[in-house]
Amino acid sequence: MSRPLVVHPDRFFPADPATRKLCRQLYEQVEKLPIVSPHGHTDPRWFAYDEPFADATSLLLTPDHYVLRMLYSQGVPMEALGVKPRGEKASVDPRAAWRRFAEYYHLFRGTPSRTWLDWVFADVFGLTVRLDASTADVYFDCIGERLATPAFRPRALFERFNIDVLATTESPIDSLEHHVAIRNSGWQGRVITAFRPDPVVDPEFEGFLGNLDLLSQMTGEDARSWQGYLAALRQRRAFFAAMGATSTDHGHPTAATADLSDAQAAALFARVTNGKPTPEDAELFRAQMLTVMAGMSVEDGLVMQIHPGSWRNHNPSLFERFGRDKGADIPMRTEYVRALQPLLARYGNEPSLTIIVFTLDESTYARELAPLAGHYPALRLGPAWWFHDSPEGMRRFRKATTETAGFYNTVGFNDDTRAFLSIPARHDLARRIDCGFLAELVMEHRIEDWEAAELAVDLAGKLAKQAYRL
Amino acid sequence: MSRPLVVHPDRFFPADPATRKLCRQLYEQVEKLPIVSPHGHTDPRWFAYDEPFADATSLLLTPDHYVLRMLYSQGVPMEALGVKPRGEKASVDPRAAWRRFAEYYHLFRGTPSRTWLDWVFADVFGLTVRLDASTADVYFDCIGERLATPAFRPRALFERFNIDVLATTESPIDSLEHHVAIRNSGWQGRVITAFRPDPVVDPEFEGFLGNLDLLSQMTGEDARSWQGYLAALRQRRAFFAAMGATSTDHGHPTAATADLSDAQAAALFARVTNGKPTPEDAELFRAQMLTVMAGMSVEDGLVMQIHPGSWRNHNPSLFERFGRDKGADIPMRTEYVRALQPLLARYGNEPSLTIIVFTLDESTYARELAPLAGHYPALRLGPAWWFHDSPEGMRRFRKATTETAGFYNTVGFNDDTRAFLSIPARHDLARRIDCGFLAELVMEHRIEDWEAAELAVDLAGKLAKQAYRL
Amino acid sequence: MSRPLVVHPDRFFPADPATRKLCRQLYEQVEKLPIVSPHGHTDPRWFAYDEPFADATSLLLTPDHYVLRMLYSQGVPMEALGVKPRGEKASVDPRAAWRRFAEYYHLFRGTPSRTWLDWVFADVFGLTVRLDASTADVYFDCIGERLATPAFRPRALFERFNIDVLATTESPIDSLEHHVAIRNSGWQGRVITAFRPDPVVDPEFEGFLGNLDLLSQMTGEDARSWQGYLAALRQRRAFFAAMGATSTDHGHPTAATADLSDAQAAALFARVTNGKPTPEDAELFRAQMLTVMAGMSVEDGLVMQIHPGSWRNHNPSLFERFGRDKGADIPMRTEYVRALQPLLARYGNEPSLTIIVFTLDESTYARELAPLAGHYPALRLGPAWWFHDSPEGMRRFRKATTETAGFYNTVGFNDDTRAFLSIPARHDLARRIDCGFLAELVMEHRIEDWEAAELAVDLAGKLAKQAYRL
Repeated sequence: MSRPLVVHPDRFFPADPATRKLCRQLYEQVEKLPIVSPHGHTDPRWFAYDEPFADATSLLLTPDHYVLRMLYSQGVPMEALGVKPRGEKASVDPRAAWRRFAEYYHLFRGTPSRTWLDWVFADVFGLTVRLDASTADVYFDCIGERLATPAFRPRALFERFNIDVLATTESPIDSLEHHVAIRNSGWQGRVITAFRPDPVVDPEFEGFLGNLDLLSQMTGEDARSWQGYLAALRQRRAFFAAMGATSTDHGHPTAATADLSDAQAAALFARVTNGKPTPEDAELFRAQMLTVMAGMSVEDGLVMQIHPGSWRNHNPSLFERFGRDKGADIPMRTEYVRALQPLLARYGNEPSLTIIVFTLDESTYARELAPLAGHYPALRLGPAWWFHDSPEGMRRFRKATTETAGFYNTVGFNDDTRAFLSIPARHDLARRIDCGFLAELVMEHRIEDWEAAELAVDLAGKLAKQAYRL
Repeated sequence: MSRPLVVHPDRFFPADPATRKLCRQLYEQVEKLPIVSPHGHTDPRWFAYDEPFADATSLLLTPDHYVLRMLYSQGVPMEALGVKPRGEKASVDPRAAWRRFAEYYHLFRGTPSRTWLDWVFADVFGLTVRLDASTADVYFDCIGERLATPAFRPRALFERFNIDVLATTESPIDSLEHHVAIRNSGWQGRVITAFRPDPVVDPEFEGFLGNLDLLSQMTGEDARSWQGYLAALRQRRAFFAAMGATSTDHGHPTAATADLSDAQAAALFARVTNGKPTPEDAELFRAQMLTVMAGMSVEDGLVMQIHPGSWRNHNPSLFERFGRDKGADIPMRTEYVRALQPLLARYGNEPSLTIIVFTLDESTYARELAPLAGHYPALRLGPAWWFHDSPEGMRRFRKATTETAGFYNTVGFNDDTRAFLSIPARHDLARRIDCGFLAELVMEHRIEDWEAAELAVDLAGKLAKQAYRL
Repeated sequence: MSRPLVVHPDRFFPADPATRKLCRQLYEQVEKLPIVSPHGHTDPRWFAYDEPFADATSLLLTPDHYVLRMLYSQGVPMEALGVKPRGEKASVDPRAAWRRFAEYYHLFRGTPSRTWLDWVFADVFGLTVRLDASTADVYFDCIGERLATPAFRPRALFERFNIDVLATTESPIDSLEHHVAIRNSGWQGRVITAFRPDPVVDPEFEGFLGNLDLLSQMTGEDARSWQGYLAALRQRRAFFAAMGATSTDHGHPTAATADLSDAQAAALFARVTNGKPTPEDAELFRAQMLTVMAGMSVEDGLVMQIHPGSWRNHNPSLFERFGRDKGADIPMRTEYVRALQPLLARYGNEPSLTIIVFTLDESTYARELAPLAGHYPALRLGPAWWFHDSPEGMRRFRKATTETAGFYNTVGFNDDTRAFLSIPARHDLARRIDCGFLAELVMEHRIEDWEAAELAVDLAGKLAKQAYRL
């Protein structure tokens, strides 16, 4: 017996009737505003070549580490979900993987993945029954059929989703060929890149030294010398900016920054590029490079994003067998006040610089990040991130930061996802939660209704456009 | 002038009328389900010999460290509450102690102790006026009279409380004679033990070396040698399992685990059993033993519980005078991501293993524990524990963990109490709070009503039975 | 087009209609109770000489670091707000500064500063339009005119505000001349001091050694010798107590305490007074002095307040240019369980001692502070502090602490402000939030309505009077 699938128009609105009514009014103003997506991980190839997506499993299941981790946590092997072990060929039939997913779909009750997926099923694919073991095939067939039609090609979906701008993320040693192809195609969708230098600024990144050699080749600079390295980075930043990038992104294990003298920095660079660096040197080099990157941002105007605090690949046997991004990245306690001080002491008062900081450690919202962002002109708070990109996570973010940092030291919402089809649902959720928060403030007479109306529009995209200089 | 005592049928339900109505419907389904209590500290002697409890003070006041600490914090001396200093005889008349308690009962406003106690007074003893100075004697007399009747003997209460299964906690060097007596008595109540090896795996436990000698005597193994020690532990685990145990429990100061080679472990064992160990060696040995115990669990199927993060006996003069468990155990910041990594790297992917982790540090719910449990097949989250076993504590637990770990990586409720009479009130509170949380999800259209109904039953006992293999 | 300014009578009350009704009833009982302000930073000169305040900018804008930091964070230079660089003369016209403030007033949406300021504008000055660029001059003129009238002199406002008692904070080397002047003036307003010894107990305080020399001069003791230093401190404490002080206040970077032998302490004192101390010695000396001060409190009955956890002057170039208290003080993670243990082991069981602990690290409320205060007779919890002195901050405080510490281990509200005009608004906010919290407990049948009524009065001032011995 299948159950009807309904995406309720009042979803995520506060339960109190008067607050809900107010929330609904605010939401109506922002519901259809274009999507501004300044930070994410979609694949530029989709938009460059506009080829159809293959099937439900390879589009919605196998690449989504949020979904994989939950299924894996309840004993479903990765292979059964279509994830290939490194060096092996795929062994699972996509339909079989989808059936397994459907059978375990109840695990997602109460999670944001369930919310995003149900929206994709109902709104993008027009499904009207819930996903479960009995409807797995209906889903697989229906989604497969739709994906084969022109209306479900990447560019058509981009337009249907009313996306104003979408940023992907690339490494300095990426040629940006797909972005070039998008430009050359004549298609008008605005897909831009962002500069993510981890592979060439983190001495512990896989293949770091080889990456520097690639960087040398691409730039004609000697990236194995400190000055050549800096020149090469500047050159790539300029190229990324020319390709539309307005931001850089830094995914470090901690928020540590340093402000060494140039001689100290050059000596450190020599150490970390001469064989395997010590963990302390690697951490210090990453720390120093955040400050160096901030300095380059003062020069070239790229907005700087810092995403610290994740222990990547916590499960070694899983990593060895399946590689990165399989759901085994775990947040750690993260400190910002001491960590960011060297960078902020150097550049925090620069009015032309914008640094957007994210966290996986919510205890820092009210204690560290809101006070820092509520003081330093260069600092802004990114939205609730990753595990906290969820109804409760977003509510905690607003409740913990607004009283100290206000709304205008935050930057609206970004989706940070590689799950392209879920992007509208993610932005919609953020708008609903923000409208609910604003409605509650109005109900408690903490702001006026006309202020809430202004703020709803600010949070739905205007602040993101301003902060990311889009 | 005494006040009426009313335990309201809608207690702990959300205030919003529509949400409350939904919550009430969910609760009606689970209200009368049998109690599954897989982790607690009741005394097996009660059920072995079924002797009447003595009086209100010795049953409800003196052994309850939650109650003692609050009264002590407001200046009531321990002696005045009937707590005997070590080596001294009792000096306080139980009635006088009860009167003091009654006089200060307003201190418990807003606390869960008040909730549990009021339920015991009203529902177990049929009292109809509130406890205060004016009703102290009425209470003391009424409770005393009832306790003298057959209906208030331990087994009768066990049956009246509709307890399906109740686990106590014993040390490996406990003979389990009372559990043997329960079995031999022919009584059908299911009271089982749990294996708590702290006295023989923590080198800093009082009497550690003597405990090892006892372990040698009980098992015929040489528990002063590493191999004999392991064999002795295996033997005792098997005996506990034969006496009904389905779980082990580990109450370490931190969550540290280690994965030493056998030679390193043997050398460490030699050090910690040869005189007073260094704090570092003691910590490393506890850490190593968690991984060893996990390995034994893979062998014998006992579910592993880890309860870390309490500074025991923080108040030295109080400890010296009155001993353990007097309310001076204080939670500390607790780290899990790094701490559990060695154990999880070794055994975290074992589908046959279940490790249930608890915390006194709520900042880890969303940041560390939910992501870990939402990935590792072996890991589950225990319910809100100790100071957080309360309406707000349980709500924070669900709000912080559900979006990342879902419901099915949690294990329902356990009471963790030695206050036998409060067990139904504790489970009832958990059911009420969980139903309230589910009702809110339905009101916000995050789950369907029929899903909430299923989940209410799962959380009320089904998940505990599954996780603890009962 | 200017907008009407309305301070709504139901502001900050819960949205649910039945809860709001209950809240309103509780609030009506406490709304007009006198203000007890046992901890703050107003200037005693105001009450000593009762001179008129100058203008809106110098009264409400320039000295308020909450307001400065928000404006600065959005790029408004300090100078434009009337803040003088060290050693320079003021360059900004107060009216121009006020206009800049008005132009940016929307930044404060959702912040407590907005709440307090709007109340001051509406209730103290009778303004009926909102502050924005179009009304800046109306505000500046109106406030200026009112301030020139007798009804807006400090003492008149003190009386109008119905302040029962107001504590300021002074250093041991302050002569208390203004407090003497208040006493000698014959005015009946109760303005008392509090003993804040940081300048003479923190070896890293600016001018520490010079401060000791001043202490010697004031007391006739040799404050450069350990015994003379202790005698000088005792003498100043006695003088402060004679001038009405009932408390001491300690603003340390951490909560560390120590309990050295007298010989160790004397040796440490010699080290920290002999040139620049090491950071470790400085920290240990502060730690030791907290325990020393607790011992003196046992002797003389002064209540001890500990305010730890702020990184002062995080922004070095701003500090160099403008000095202290410009909004660049940032909270840090703070540990209490280990830190306070030496002091509590020594004095925590003293029934005659009261230590009130504050925090900027909310993760410690439920984990550390409520369990500690719910056990040690000497310990009480101060209210939500600084960045957390806000609607959400106060709610989190009550929700996180009440279940473990109850209400009676907290001490009601204090405002901790130098913004004299906002004091009524701050106390009013606390009363509203506490009544809302109590109303919610009643709605969930966790306490009775008559208990909520008692508690509302306790929290509105009674607990503060008791805890601070006023």
